[in-house]
Amino acid sequence: AEFNKPDFNIIDNYIYCFVGDGCLMEGVSHEACSLAGTWELNKLIVFYDDNNISIDGNIDGWFTEDIPARFKSYKWNVIADVDGHCPDAINAAIVSAHQENNKPTIICCKTTIGFGSPNVAGTAASHGSPLGEQEIKLTKEKLAWPYKAFEIPAEIYKSWDAVSQGSEIKNNWDDLLVKYKNKYPELANEFLRRINSELPDGWANKLTNFKSATATATRKSSQQILASIDLPELIGGSADLTGSNCTKAANSKNYIHYGVREFAMTAIMNGIKLYGGFIPYGGTFLTFTDYARNAVRLAALMHNQIILVYSHDSIGLGEDGPTHQPIEHINILRLTPNLNVWRPCDGAETAIAWQHAIEHKTGPSCILLTRQNVPQQPYNANINKGGYILQACENPELIIIATGSEVELAQEVAKLVAKKIQIVSMPCAEVFMQQDQNYKDKVLIPGVLKVAIEAGSTNFWYQFVGIEGKVFGIDEYGISAPYLEIYQEMSLTAEKIAEQL
Amino acid sequence: AEFNKPDFNIIDNYIYCFVGDGCLMEGVSHEACSLAGTWELNKLIVFYDDNNISIDGNIDGWFTEDIPARFKSYKWNVIADVDGHCPDAINAAIVSAHQENNKPTIICCKTTIGFGSPNVAGTAASHGSPLGEQEIKLTKEKLAWPYKAFEIPAEIYKSWDAVSQGSEIKNNWDDLLVKYKNKYPELANEFLRRINSELPDGWANKLTNFKSATATATRKSSQQILASIDLPELIGGSADLTGSNCTKAANSKNYIHYGVREFAMTAIMNGIKLYGGFIPYGGTFLTFTDYARNAVRLAALMHNQIILVYSHDSIGLGEDGPTHQPIEHINILRLTPNLNVWRPCDGAETAIAWQHAIEHKTGPSCILLTRQNVPQQPYNANINKGGYILQACENPELIIIATGSEVELAQEVAKLVAKKIQIVSMPCAEVFMQQDQNYKDKVLIPGVLKVAIEAGSTNFWYQFVGIEGKVFGIDEYGISAPYLEIYQEMSLTAEKIAEQL
Repeated sequence: AEFNKPDFNIIDNYIYCFVGDGCLMEGVSHEACSLAGTWELNKLIVFYDDNNISIDGNIDGWFTEDIPARFKSYKWNVIADVDGHCPDAINAAIVSAHQENNKPTIICCKTTIGFGSPNVAGTAASHGSPLGEQEIKLTKEKLAWPYKAFEIPAEIYKSWDAVSQGSEIKNNWDDLLVKYKNKYPELANEFLRRINSELPDGWANKLTNFKSATATATRKSSQQILASIDLPELIGGSADLTGSNCTKAANSKNYIHYGVREFAMTAIMNGIKLYGGFIPYGGTFLTFTDYARNAVRLAALMHNQIILVYSHDSIGLGEDGPTHQPIEHINILRLTPNLNVWRPCDGAETAIAWQHAIEHKTGPSCILLTRQNVPQQPYNANINKGGYILQACENPELIIIATGSEVELAQEVAKLVAKKIQIVSMPCAEVFMQQDQNYKDKVLIPGVLKVAIEAGSTNFWYQFVGIEGKVFGIDEYGISAPYLEIYQEMSLTAEKIAEQL
Repeated sequence: AEFNKPDFNIIDNYIYCFVGDGCLMEGVSHEACSLAGTWELNKLIVFYDDNNISIDGNIDGWFTEDIPARFKSYKWNVIADVDGHCPDAINAAIVSAHQENNKPTIICCKTTIGFGSPNVAGTAASHGSPLGEQEIKLTKEKLAWPYKAFEIPAEIYKSWDAVSQGSEIKNNWDDLLVKYKNKYPELANEFLRRINSELPDGWANKLTNFKSATATATRKSSQQILASIDLPELIGGSADLTGSNCTKAANSKNYIHYGVREFAMTAIMNGIKLYGGFIPYGGTFLTFTDYARNAVRLAALMHNQIILVYSHDSIGLGEDGPTHQPIEHINILRLTPNLNVWRPCDGAETAIAWQHAIEHKTGPSCILLTRQNVPQQPYNANINKGGYILQACENPELIIIATGSEVELAQEVAKLVAKKIQIVSMPCAEVFMQQDQNYKDKVLIPGVLKVAIEAGSTNFWYQFVGIEGKVFGIDEYGISAPYLEIYQEMSLTAEKIAEQL
């Protein structure tokens, strides 16, 4: 919609997707396909390999739904009863799918698993195991296939060789782009900038100076920050918690209401980023990351840049109670390799978290945000190092590490303890651990007693504080109460912590 | 099927379930409702509160599927277009649902959210926020409801009071049970035993002596153990990995093929256990616990006894590669409060894990099992303490803690290091941490240098080994290769570990 012009169909591809019975059993197939129908994604064409077999055997005992009827209920174009072993039938279905103007298409291909094998075709035995020498021999006989393994007969090679056809298509597109550059130079530059994931110079100027004037929830600061970022490649969204996550600014250009679908949201963000041209971010409550765990993991595994905005990041969410209060989730995210976990303590840290997440092109980031107000701390140029000395002192006897809403608590604790105390704010432990040893030793001075405070499970912090240190956190489920009462109930108050120091 | 007899309808209830638009957007609604149709659960009656609103507003932008058509595709009995504000219409729908013999029923109730409120009815404004004093006043006027808050008019109280009707139904059922006991005393005793979650005396005799004759994968040992447990209340299953998880023994009585639906499997196990009379267990690969995280968490939060069998518990699964190799998952499970995480190193530990999980009635347990063979270790009576001295030595200079498949590796390391070494097997850290301090100090002697070895993320172990100790594990994603090569690639070999000690 943004870049195509009359005679310049710069973006003209279809997306083809292959699914089997197992894929369509999984819940995420429902979330994603329901949205695809609502969004009228006519460029999406799904081949359903309908072979009636999954690993446990014939699916009649566990998968009897009517797939064409299900996809019609999603408002898809359904092409049913296609012979999945007949190239002409498949081709006719694709041609027909291309005619569709406002619906995604599913092409239901009836197939036989292990096609041609006299003894295991149509059974689960041909799903995960090789046929074996004898059965391969019999299969080749049945299919009248006299060739050796990996031998491709010349005429088949020739008829499947699409190199020259592909080159021609690519060259045509390259030529089109040259003409497009001549006719729409600014648009072409912008298109290439986005496709190449290049950020405009000075894009983050407003972020580096961002501060909150008064005590503000970091989710609210995050919304103000979003309003100040002028990047058309940012495409936001929320799994039906837009107002709570504060993921939509008044001037947000690209925004997706994903509905109550955390898993599909995260998987779709992965897809958008892999396609290119966008930096997707999406919000939900931190505790609901559970629903999307696999898509978060795949983002990390693929080094795919998506930005996960998780508000209501602790028992601080209050009355919704333990189902909605994350306890283990901060550390579940930290356990995920290649994932930067930001938990800012104020507006300035929130801005730097956003800047880092947008500039960090080699993996996903998440930004954990409070529901409750937190004070703006003195600004520090080392926020982008992931951890820094917020409150310094000479020859400290105790170092308190804290994150997010507990940084303020650490400051209260320090006032009550008659020791020389250094306070460290650690908004992103992953980024901190990548700093040089000299910097790390200045922040977390070896040999000095250390404690950590965080409203979540404790065991992550022992690698920093050791057995001799203490971690003040929460290793049990929360309760439904106003948030200050929950802190009290969970012994996370300045008085109770100070008593133990 | 097991306990009802002619004239003795001991189990005769329906299950009623209330869902909204958001629930039906979530993937788990697809997984569970598809199975309910296949299983012909005619006792299940679902009310769908169809008010066209979710938190982000009118759902036309993100939820346009045809719910009646979707549920027909699942082979449900669909009662559409019911006025959800009309008790007679709802009652007629329930009566009709009770006539259904082989389909679950969904009753689609058209409703208005915030019904009666002149200004916010039918909008998202009445979803999460109270109406406020003024709007409450207007709503009461519109509904001609002159009563104060919490005041119930006498005639309404009387017509809704079902105490005597309920008592009569309960008394009738109690009488029926007395007659049932007289006529079928053994069946009645067995019924009450199961409903009261009582285990038969000596049920675990075979488990306490279980050993593997040769090096065996713990998933295989687990299958042999299942075959030796004669408990009809055990109801097993797998999310389409029965052969790989080894969750089905030749003599398994109750077994569910859940299909490729990890989330629904775990949620359904929760439902079965909450209903009573069964101890459900279900299997998948450890890495796929990601799909079911929320249901695992709810089991823990509800102190609900379900048993999660997670095979292929490390990079030891080999060629399937990093998508299938758990790295962070052992510790994600350990982060979950109230969840016992067993990772046995041999047949004997696997048997004790099963015994503990079956006897642990106040919460879920998971049992993490290897794909690859592991040797049978010398038997130790302290396995049920969660951690114990597998290889003792006087005045050790080094304590090596290991779990599961890495216990064997710890033994190899000990042979290469010229130090006095105590080896600790820690099949369940949660249970170990509940032991008295004296026992824990004997196993993990304070002041002695400690290291931990586990083929998964490292940070859990620092609370045991401290900053001065070392953890040998895996904090990055795996690779696709035969499993011994992956151990090599990840520097988890006896030689590489010994070099650092």
